[in-house]
Amino acid sequence: TGSKKCKTIMLMFSEYNICFRDGGYVMQLERRGYVKAGHWTPEAAVEHPEAVRQLHREFLRAGANVIQTFTFYCSEDKLEISGNVTNITGAQINEAACDLAREVANEGDALVAGCVSKTPCYVKSHSETEVKAIFKKQMDDFLKKDIDFFIVEFVDHVEEAVWAVEVLKTSGKPVGATLCISPHGDMHGVPPGQCAVRMVKAGADIVGVNCHLDPLTCVQTVKLMKAGLEKAGLKAHLMIQPLGFHTPECNIGGYTSLPEYPFALETRAMTRWDIHKYAREAYNAGIRYIGGCCGFEPYHIRAIAEEVAAERGFLPPASEKHGLWGAALEMHTKPWVRARARREYWENLLPASGRPKCPSMATPADDYEKQLETKIQM
Amino acid sequence: TGSKKCKTIMLMFSEYNICFRDGGYVMQLERRGYVKAGHWTPEAAVEHPEAVRQLHREFLRAGANVIQTFTFYCSEDKLEISGNVTNITGAQINEAACDLAREVANEGDALVAGCVSKTPCYVKSHSETEVKAIFKKQMDDFLKKDIDFFIVEFVDHVEEAVWAVEVLKTSGKPVGATLCISPHGDMHGVPPGQCAVRMVKAGADIVGVNCHLDPLTCVQTVKLMKAGLEKAGLKAHLMIQPLGFHTPECNIGGYTSLPEYPFALETRAMTRWDIHKYAREAYNAGIRYIGGCCGFEPYHIRAIAEEVAAERGFLPPASEKHGLWGAALEMHTKPWVRARARREYWENLLPASGRPKCPSMATPADDYEKQLETKIQM
Amino acid sequence: TGSKKCKTIMLMFSEYNICFRDGGYVMQLERRGYVKAGHWTPEAAVEHPEAVRQLHREFLRAGANVIQTFTFYCSEDKLEISGNVTNITGAQINEAACDLAREVANEGDALVAGCVSKTPCYVKSHSETEVKAIFKKQMDDFLKKDIDFFIVEFVDHVEEAVWAVEVLKTSGKPVGATLCISPHGDMHGVPPGQCAVRMVKAGADIVGVNCHLDPLTCVQTVKLMKAGLEKAGLKAHLMIQPLGFHTPECNIGGYTSLPEYPFALETRAMTRWDIHKYAREAYNAGIRYIGGCCGFEPYHIRAIAEEVAAERGFLPPASEKHGLWGAALEMHTKPWVRARARREYWENLLPASGRPKCPSMATPADDYEKQLETKIQM
Amino acid sequence: TGSKKCKTIMLMFSEYNICFRDGGYVMQLERRGYVKAGHWTPEAAVEHPEAVRQLHREFLRAGANVIQTFTFYCSEDKLEISGNVTNITGAQINEAACDLAREVANEGDALVAGCVSKTPCYVKSHSETEVKAIFKKQMDDFLKKDIDFFIVEFVDHVEEAVWAVEVLKTSGKPVGATLCISPHGDMHGVPPGQCAVRMVKAGADIVGVNCHLDPLTCVQTVKLMKAGLEKAGLKAHLMIQPLGFHTPECNIGGYTSLPEYPFALETRAMTRWDIHKYAREAYNAGIRYIGGCCGFEPYHIRAIAEEVAAERGFLPPASEKHGLWGAALEMHTKPWVRARARREYWENLLPASGRPKCPSMATPADDYEKQLETKIQM
Repeated sequence: TGSKKCKTIMLMFSEYNICFRDGGYVMQLERRGYVKAGHWTPEAAVEHPEAVRQLHREFLRAGANVIQTFTFYCSEDKLEISGNVTNITGAQINEAACDLAREVANEGDALVAGCVSKTPCYVKSHSETEVKAIFKKQMDDFLKKDIDFFIVEFVDHVEEAVWAVEVLKTSGKPVGATLCISPHGDMHGVPPGQCAVRMVKAGADIVGVNCHLDPLTCVQTVKLMKAGLEKAGLKAHLMIQPLGFHTPECNIGGYTSLPEYPFALETRAMTRWDIHKYAREAYNAGIRYIGGCCGFEPYHIRAIAEEVAAERGFLPPASEKHGLWGAALEMHTKPWVRARARREYWENLLPASGRPKCPSMATPADDYEKQLETKIQM
Repeated sequence: TGSKKCKTIMLMFSEYNICFRDGGYVMQLERRGYVKAGHWTPEAAVEHPEAVRQLHREFLRAGANVIQTFTFYCSEDKLEISGNVTNITGAQINEAACDLAREVANEGDALVAGCVSKTPCYVKSHSETEVKAIFKKQMDDFLKKDIDFFIVEFVDHVEEAVWAVEVLKTSGKPVGATLCISPHGDMHGVPPGQCAVRMVKAGADIVGVNCHLDPLTCVQTVKLMKAGLEKAGLKAHLMIQPLGFHTPECNIGGYTSLPEYPFALETRAMTRWDIHKYAREAYNAGIRYIGGCCGFEPYHIRAIAEEVAAERGFLPPASEKHGLWGAALEMHTKPWVRARARREYWENLLPASGRPKCPSMATPADDYEKQLETKIQM
Repeated sequence: TGSKKCKTIMLMFSEYNICFRDGGYVMQLERRGYVKAGHWTPEAAVEHPEAVRQLHREFLRAGANVIQTFTFYCSEDKLEISGNVTNITGAQINEAACDLAREVANEGDALVAGCVSKTPCYVKSHSETEVKAIFKKQMDDFLKKDIDFFIVEFVDHVEEAVWAVEVLKTSGKPVGATLCISPHGDMHGVPPGQCAVRMVKAGADIVGVNCHLDPLTCVQTVKLMKAGLEKAGLKAHLMIQPLGFHTPECNIGGYTSLPEYPFALETRAMTRWDIHKYAREAYNAGIRYIGGCCGFEPYHIRAIAEEVAAERGFLPPASEKHGLWGAALEMHTKPWVRARARREYWENLLPASGRPKCPSMATPADDYEKQLETKIQM
Repeated sequence: TGSKKCKTIMLMFSEYNICFRDGGYVMQLERRGYVKAGHWTPEAAVEHPEAVRQLHREFLRAGANVIQTFTFYCSEDKLEISGNVTNITGAQINEAACDLAREVANEGDALVAGCVSKTPCYVKSHSETEVKAIFKKQMDDFLKKDIDFFIVEFVDHVEEAVWAVEVLKTSGKPVGATLCISPHGDMHGVPPGQCAVRMVKAGADIVGVNCHLDPLTCVQTVKLMKAGLEKAGLKAHLMIQPLGFHTPECNIGGYTSLPEYPFALETRAMTRWDIHKYAREAYNAGIRYIGGCCGFEPYHIRAIAEEVAAERGFLPPASEKHGLWGAALEMHTKPWVRARARREYWENLLPASGRPKCPSMATPADDYEKQLETKIQM
């Protein structure tokens, strides 16, 4: 059924479909007690499969129709650095993660995407041979199992993404490639438009961005990618998986530069209504693979699904437990809470932090002055 | 083994033990897609037991040694009002919830508490006979199963709590009673100290507060309860289960009066470091049953367990995936993130909201002027 | 004409009149370059009479009908401590200040109030004889000149205010007495109601509060004074001269406890619209001597005069250069600025600080914990 | 002595001198009750010369060595539009303003600059002949009096500034030209570098920016002007007169686009310490004519003079009433206030607004979306 699946995927990415990525596994599982911040490795796929399975289910129920394998940072070189955590091998994790994703995907009508992310080897060795060998090894793990397509994610040098795409395309399966970059470009200053062109020329069927910055900034980056592709006469599907946090002051370095990263990001969390706005902006920009990364929880994915329910033709299962735009508050005993059972209320609310001794913007660690000058470069 | 268990419970509440309540089920399961905000009823215990079981496990793993049954708002009269949601009976939910709690409690060394909460009947009828009949019915459901003690929670009139305690004490099991009140007292203005006295005289073995207000405010309320008991020459264990949100501007009405309730409370969420501070304050106030309510997630309960690990003698299982005070950041690639691997950094951080167009305090719906005057009444 | 004047004053304080104090001289003249922060002494009356005269004129023009002598901290013992600043004597300053106030008062229809403030001697010696001698000496300076009545101000122990009133009443002139206290009472914990009673019994014709806290808090304090007087069957005119700064987090210590005092208070400054609200609250509370202290500028006094123009029967001279509620913006070239030419706009505006890296509330230096407990003491 | 003065001016602008503009007359006099917001015309020079004279003196005392004539918006066409205010002619105001400036300048060692600003005629007629006639008329008023040089200010189309410079250069006197533009350029999109080149080619001896945006943004704009001049092989003195308000969210439209303009800008006001930082940045950028516009008060100008006192060789007169970096607080009675008598304290303070219900950033009226896109234009 490989070719049938592949056809399905291509149909999925047509203009007439919308799809979602489930995102933010490691950060969510850190909060649930199964992933260690700092390491961010996915050994829970072997150690606590019930926790990973449950999270997959919640995203499926929220409306995701792609289940990503829980294989973030699961290259052998990365696991070795974090080797004190566990003696489980990368192959064991990759295979267990594929099985879990497939099991849950089959409970609905979802596809399984095998995911690879940036390797420590790239920065350390900058050797195409070595880096490609790492991606090849991880791909081979995936190919022992039943996955539908590949996603390259959390890469901040377009060169490494190109190498990953080149390896993964040898599988014959579709490949999506997302960079964790800002509108200012990758870590070598390659602008988003050029990044997109290089990834598509390498074979990527889908391109986009993930992580590091907030939704509206990520939409801008994907728009620049789209413009770059159009200028080059190329075509690809567009995808987006931003943070579920407000990061207006972030520059190239993204949210790891914020003083709050990673243990005090709560106050920056998006509400479901922020996500409605984001989903609409992304849709209007022509993006049809709309998801989320760190900070997204199941109810954020549901908000995407609810925002584009009309275009997609259906509500997700989890909406049975959600009055649209707060409708279920109509039965509340307090009159002022009942008055919140309407779209206009939530769309216009400016939520208070309850933290009057805290600022509303932080100074990112990566050079404030540089940021200011970038803002007015000409 | 009933009497052995009962002895264990009493030992548990001695000065030499510390215990935790796992809290905030309905709000957490709303975000996971299994509970409907506005109704807040626990039919998921029957509909999606795997989701409830997984959340119980996460709290157990985080250090809880009491597992509460997922039976919030599960009285017949409340279910009837929300009857459009499901045709599952209260008895079915109560029994399924007891089984789930027991199953997970037995995976560790935890007790099971059967929980009842305020009834719509109280405000509607104000009939002692009717209200007590409702509590009796729910108690009988629990007694068909294996539970260790009872908790009365989320009651804002001390009178109703007293009625509940009187019913539950007929079971011969220990009873805890928590009110969702502020330092200003219950909805009829009965001060916390008097509330505690009345509940203990009715038979409560444990008294305290839950929900509605932030941790430090709740500690103040329990202190007032303690002072009231001491003045009356009474003794009881103290418990506390506050919100996991910052609500400095709330008055008697609590967080439902905030414009952000219930769908935009994200920015008010506590960090794990806020919880460390709270746990220490609660411990110093003599409270030994320390937990959390709406807004608490497993990592917040872990933070309580880590704060009092020395007193308790052990770390919870989930700490294997958590470097104390951010220690695991020492291996991060960015020097400025590595610099965050220490207690002093996180204790002193004032996290930014990333929302410069939002205020830091809201105006609660329940009369701003009244609040001001209360503040300086003499 | 002494008795005629005296009658005028008594008429002034009847229910049918409203009057204003011009306030905040030292802080405003610090910004203009004539007073040294830290010393806060009024030698400018001798050194730079033109600067003091001009400021008097601005307040007269803004609607003040009492001109206070610029004699803050002008007791001999205080000047000695600050003696490094100048070798001008207290008598020289007091007399020059009386002349300046009278000169400007006569340009309009205003009265002159001779002002005394707290003495370092009180805290140092606590000797009634010594403190009264200081007040007597300052009074004698004033009596060489033409003043209409006395004001005791910026005293934080009611005992010292009582001593001052007792001295000043020997002049036969009316005396007003204001304390810089919070609703919690004076520095020895004497509640506002009792403070008022003691000052009236000592002979004060007018009582109230000044400085240290923001307008709405000061209105609360005066209300407590009024209630205390009523309970004691006493009568007096009420006056108020609060800060022109927002200080919601201040406790007993007032604004000197704020980290921003005295050189970074800008962001806390009241707008003219805040003052409208304050003037109305003060008027509704029965206060008829409405003014301002540190932070007030001429346009704030004009805002008081404009708010109560209907009750008073006229607008102040400076209103010729002020469209009421922003009316003069109607001629602006930008449509969005023209849209601001209306009362509703300015009344509802929540002004942004433009400082996203700053908090909205500070921690006062005088014990945060004490503050919290005070809030909920019962 | 014309040629001697002229030589003095040229010396003044050499690398070995620093000079200051006194700024923000209309906004400061609005608060003092002499200027009508919305009109912003300077008839007070005739109506209330004592108020204008006093403000001139305060700036001189604060360290200014240029006194600008109080002639903002004093072209005949502008006065006609605001004609309902007064029946005083432009010539009367211009001449009175020259006399006042000269009187005060002679009390110190200051120069007098005759100022012209943008004309309504430019936008209405776009006729070079008509606009130049207006500037010519105003210049002739000035030439009847004793002024040292001219300044063109508050112009947002470089073309109009060029016309003004061409007129004023016919006087034989030095001319400075400042635009109220952002780093994005003038209202027709001409970049700052090109603006500077065009004004210097027209004859301007000094170029720079004034008003509309905060200090650090204005420094960026002047840097771009400097770079443009260097690229073109041209030389000119650089000047800067920014707002005394924080306006981080402003775009091309500047502060009139902020919801707080013009009656609720208080919370955005700069502290003296903000000004120290600005003066150093401006100095480091090579700017030697450093001043301020709307929002600046005398103590802000003193802060500039104190920051560059070492380079300039002297402190201004007003510093006799100012302990550098808060030194005079050493004598305060409260220990925590004494602890503020040091530079490090004030440099690092993040002042709180005391307004927890207000946001820290507003949405400017001139199209939020445009702003976002400009930020990441490539």
